[in-house]
Amino acid sequence: EEVSKLLALKAQLGSDDGKHQFVLKTPKGTRDYNPKQMAVREKVFNTIVSCFKRHGAETIDTPVFELKETLTGKYGEDSKLIYDLKDQGGELLSLRYDLTVPFARYLAMNKITNIKRYHIAKVYRRDNPAMTRGRYREFYQCDFDIAGKYDAMIPDAECLRIVHEILSELDLGDFHIKVNDRRILDGMFAVCGVPDDKFRTICSTVDKLDKMCWEDVKTEMVKEKGLSEDAANQIGQYVSMQGGMDLAERLLQDSKMSQSKQACAGLSDMKQLFSYLQLFQVTDKVVFDLSLARGLDYYTGIIYEGVLTQTGATPAPPLQARAGDTLDGVESVSVGSLAGGGRYDGLVGMFDAKGRTVPCVGVSIGIERIFSIMEQKAEAEKVRTTEIQVMVVSAQKNLLEERLKLVTELWNAGIKAEVMYKKNPKLLSQLQHCEESGIPLVAILGEQELKDGVVKLRTTATREEVDVSRVDLVQKIRKMTSAV
Amino acid sequence: EEVSKLLALKAQLGSDDGKHQFVLKTPKGTRDYNPKQMAVREKVFNTIVSCFKRHGAETIDTPVFELKETLTGKYGEDSKLIYDLKDQGGELLSLRYDLTVPFARYLAMNKITNIKRYHIAKVYRRDNPAMTRGRYREFYQCDFDIAGKYDAMIPDAECLRIVHEILSELDLGDFHIKVNDRRILDGMFAVCGVPDDKFRTICSTVDKLDKMCWEDVKTEMVKEKGLSEDAANQIGQYVSMQGGMDLAERLLQDSKMSQSKQACAGLSDMKQLFSYLQLFQVTDKVVFDLSLARGLDYYTGIIYEGVLTQTGATPAPPLQARAGDTLDGVESVSVGSLAGGGRYDGLVGMFDAKGRTVPCVGVSIGIERIFSIMEQKAEAEKVRTTEIQVMVVSAQKNLLEERLKLVTELWNAGIKAEVMYKKNPKLLSQLQHCEESGIPLVAILGEQELKDGVVKLRTTATREEVDVSRVDLVQKIRKMTSAV
Repeated sequence: EEVSKLLALKAQLGSDDGKHQFVLKTPKGTRDYNPKQMAVREKVFNTIVSCFKRHGAETIDTPVFELKETLTGKYGEDSKLIYDLKDQGGELLSLRYDLTVPFARYLAMNKITNIKRYHIAKVYRRDNPAMTRGRYREFYQCDFDIAGKYDAMIPDAECLRIVHEILSELDLGDFHIKVNDRRILDGMFAVCGVPDDKFRTICSTVDKLDKMCWEDVKTEMVKEKGLSEDAANQIGQYVSMQGGMDLAERLLQDSKMSQSKQACAGLSDMKQLFSYLQLFQVTDKVVFDLSLARGLDYYTGIIYEGVLTQTGATPAPPLQARAGDTLDGVESVSVGSLAGGGRYDGLVGMFDAKGRTVPCVGVSIGIERIFSIMEQKAEAEKVRTTEIQVMVVSAQKNLLEERLKLVTELWNAGIKAEVMYKKNPKLLSQLQHCEESGIPLVAILGEQELKDGVVKLRTTATREEVDVSRVDLVQKIRKMTSAV
Repeated sequence: EEVSKLLALKAQLGSDDGKHQFVLKTPKGTRDYNPKQMAVREKVFNTIVSCFKRHGAETIDTPVFELKETLTGKYGEDSKLIYDLKDQGGELLSLRYDLTVPFARYLAMNKITNIKRYHIAKVYRRDNPAMTRGRYREFYQCDFDIAGKYDAMIPDAECLRIVHEILSELDLGDFHIKVNDRRILDGMFAVCGVPDDKFRTICSTVDKLDKMCWEDVKTEMVKEKGLSEDAANQIGQYVSMQGGMDLAERLLQDSKMSQSKQACAGLSDMKQLFSYLQLFQVTDKVVFDLSLARGLDYYTGIIYEGVLTQTGATPAPPLQARAGDTLDGVESVSVGSLAGGGRYDGLVGMFDAKGRTVPCVGVSIGIERIFSIMEQKAEAEKVRTTEIQVMVVSAQKNLLEERLKLVTELWNAGIKAEVMYKKNPKLLSQLQHCEESGIPLVAILGEQELKDGVVKLRTTATREEVDVSRVDLVQKIRKMTSAV
């Protein structure tokens, strides 16, 4: 009956000869994670979560979809990339586009004014996938945010310390963290003569400096966006500047820049930030870079981005050479930003009926790009996908019951153990399984061992075997696996 | 500029007075997890994942949505509960309804014939939510499955051992695990005179015996489903039977039951199963129960369900009393099934062009119901939501820099530590924060301590304070927190 039912169902699937014509695949821009990829993913998550916990973060979770109106008006042009659910009656829903807007909704809804939280979850964007470079339509975000009214730049500096810790511990290669401030950018635009209503669009163009050379960026500003040549040239001088606290001090004295109140506020905070970064011992990697703009609209203060100086395999081309990539229609080989974030003091207020704001600063770890790099590294290595410590095997036939008894003893003692699901598996195939899967120990049962009340314990790596009394077995395994 | 932009966006949100009229909520049937709930969730997941790993499972992940056609024809009547995505051009997609069908799709797509894997992820059903009883539209499933051709009943028995381990370790109260076999059910229907085409619908009615009394079930069979009174009475005799290996033996001798080849195959396997369960030391909780039917269509062999004998707070009413609940329109107070599963040997073949099957057996842990119970328990207790070991505080003003220096030293040593993000926080408010959050240690800095090269280390619980030399601090903290 079952079989006929299944066959009937199969036939329903649309083909008259009982075969399937439909495509066996995951949706465009998505992928399965196989056990090896999951092992890499778990390792990366552990590193990141340990860091978040070391800094005292709690964690929350929100639904994968939100009311459509919750996301409306938060992402500007990118709204077209939001996945909507079909109207099946009831509420109109959309898949979350990031974790920041749901976080702001959560704070407003629960009237929370202070929290330090992390959130690791998948988000959804109907973008053009580029999966080899870690760009998917379904991808993880790993966010850490500090919400609350505090003294300036202390939480901001801790976010940068966190980026530093995570990128150092993941050991992906040399990196640096660019910082800038939206107020400095806006002040700069103002003093360079950019009209108020062009700030955001010129800012988007500046944001492309990590992929395009200055000449192309300037052309876009002047030709496409209608900025004056003179204003563009003035911007060009500023955005080439990089430095540390010294640069902030110099710009505070700059005759033009100092005319903008906003820029001065940003620059004073930048000085303050660097003094905290010194105490946090991370100034070796942090660069104040006036070309950093970041795409998202909701930032109101400091912004930052962690980038690899070069990837392990393919060094990123020097700045001058990148223009060629773009001309060829090929994007830079650099994996780009590995972490990014900034201060967004206005977002929570958008959800509050009385507009009460909760200042926030946060960082998002670009986990898919990190997976890409780590997976490439892992390809060469042998990655274990289970944690089994001992395989219980039999040397002769008809010992299934004895194997099941022994594996039960081991499970009872909390030891990770398995048996083959065969009545009479061959000894060789059992031992081969251990070598292939990297199971460190083998507990061998035979007639003789049963008579003597012992188990032959074999170390897979060395193939050494030793008889262990049944009563001492658990202790012995614990000792040997803690040493492995 | 930023502020004006945000105000403009706010205005767009639909109200002319700048206030929001839209509802601040999560979609129907979904919820946020706050930090305390997340702490409970993490604890439950750790217990479950440890068990899965102890049994040698790998893990995989699949996208939250699948091609619509992948889910088509797999869930029978329940298909109407599937969430579809809006057609925005491109593929037609649906949110996953369970983890079993994506698992079968994954096996067929990658031509995998042997795997032992677990998968923990959210699934989506447009069902009527009953959130107080742990029934949501977005909820976690925790699945463990063994795929591959093996000797009969060995992997099946391990799945039951896993249910036993997890329900024991979670310590939710007394439980038992009902087992039955689809072949025994079908054989029973045959010998009781149920027409072939009524097997599945009568099976669905039998499945209601955990919520309805026999009289109501019989009425449904006879009045609604058109079964003969005689056939229903015969079924009634069988479905009241419960036992162990002895019952399987008795039914093998039963003059009626023994006429069905299918039933005999199921009963022999049941005997075999119980012999393995004895070796696995779990027969104390396992009951062969002929009334267990389980809703899903795809099961082909053994089926099982773990249920609480009584919940901690509200004991489930005895079987006779439950009729009243249904008559009153009130569902049983029992939280119901905490784990369930079975063998499904035909599902993978539905995805294979040549119909090649991969036999599978698995178990799904009813994690949301477990969360509900654990959260109720946790309400009374104080649950820590961070893992901070030390808070660095200052006794006087103007010591922010010294606090930041010290917390950096602790982070460098891998110690979980935090400071208040204020220049001059009050000592009392810093200490209060430690007591409220359950932070075990406080490192106090004052002018005198700095002069002496020491830190005053305070144990929050006892309020004892001791001066520790700066060079010994990390060691001392490690020692004290490992003892805490």
